[in-house]
Amino acid sequence: MNTQPLRVLLIRSDDAKRRLLKHMGGTNRDKTAAAPLVAVLAADTAFHDHLPRTFPHFPGARDLFADDAGREQAARFNATLQVGYFLLGIRAAGLTAGPMGGFDAAGVDEDLLAGTGLRSLLVVNIGHPGPDAWFDRLPRLEVDEVVRSL
Amino acid sequence: MNTQPLRVLLIRSDDAKRRLLKHMGGTNRDKTAAAPLVAVLAADTAFHDHLPRTFPHFPGARDLFADDAGREQAARFNATLQVGYFLLGIRAAGLTAGPMGGFDAAGVDEDLLAGTGLRSLLVVNIGHPGPDAWFDRLPRLEVDEVVRSL
Repeated sequence: MNTQPLRVLLIRSDDAKRRLLKHMGGTNRDKTAAAPLVAVLAADTAFHDHLPRTFPHFPGARDLFADDAGREQAARFNATLQVGYFLLGIRAAGLTAGPMGGFDAAGVDEDLLAGTGLRSLLVVNIGHPGPDAWFDRLPRLEVDEVVRSL
Repeated sequence: MNTQPLRVLLIRSDDAKRRLLKHMGGTNRDKTAAAPLVAVLAADTAFHDHLPRTFPHFPGARDLFADDAGREQAARFNATLQVGYFLLGIRAAGLTAGPMGGFDAAGVDEDLLAGTGLRSLLVVNIGHPGPDAWFDRLPRLEVDEVVRSL
């Protein structure tokens, strides 16, 4: 279903940056402080209100998400799929994306997203990498550890 | 962190296909029955056992995921990010991906994934599209409905 629950909050003001930094964990705080652009990626728990416009051939779509807990779960799942697209899109545009789950999501929701119905999923630093910005590529699992046929 | 929790179960045998179809909802059952290849995408709740190999510079990584509920949540979140990459990868390879959330996930987990610690997230039909396979492109939200600056 065409739910599109991902929302992007770009942290552009000094005040917003200062408020976000309070909620960042450990070494992520310094990385976020130094990033030229930071995006808070979030799931919109009121995504269903758009369905009459975005899924018009099925008039009952909105009512399928009447249950708050089920709707939040759907918002988080589908927005997280979109986060995958977002990260690849940033990189396809020639920029670097530094995604971080190490932050106080409840704190971000209460502070930067108060009253919006948004739930933060990931904080992403965006910019051009400096010199020697990379770790060596970390080991990947083998194909037969990931893919199985039945 | 380099968690890589996504697992792919390719449904290749008649028996596996028959068992999967029982758990598919509504019109998804016919689509899955007709698909040349079907993948069940799942999150591995035992992903942390690989961390000594995949995140070797941080010996305490595995122990961060000792809590079962927190670990399952991390597995689902990070595997769902990987699902976004998987779908784009299928399409980048010139194939069509038909992702479906409309199935009985608990039924799939108990039947096809019994004893594995995997939790199904999405079923994806894979193949070449037939003639007239497409709906018209559904409406997208406007940029200012999705992106906000603070």
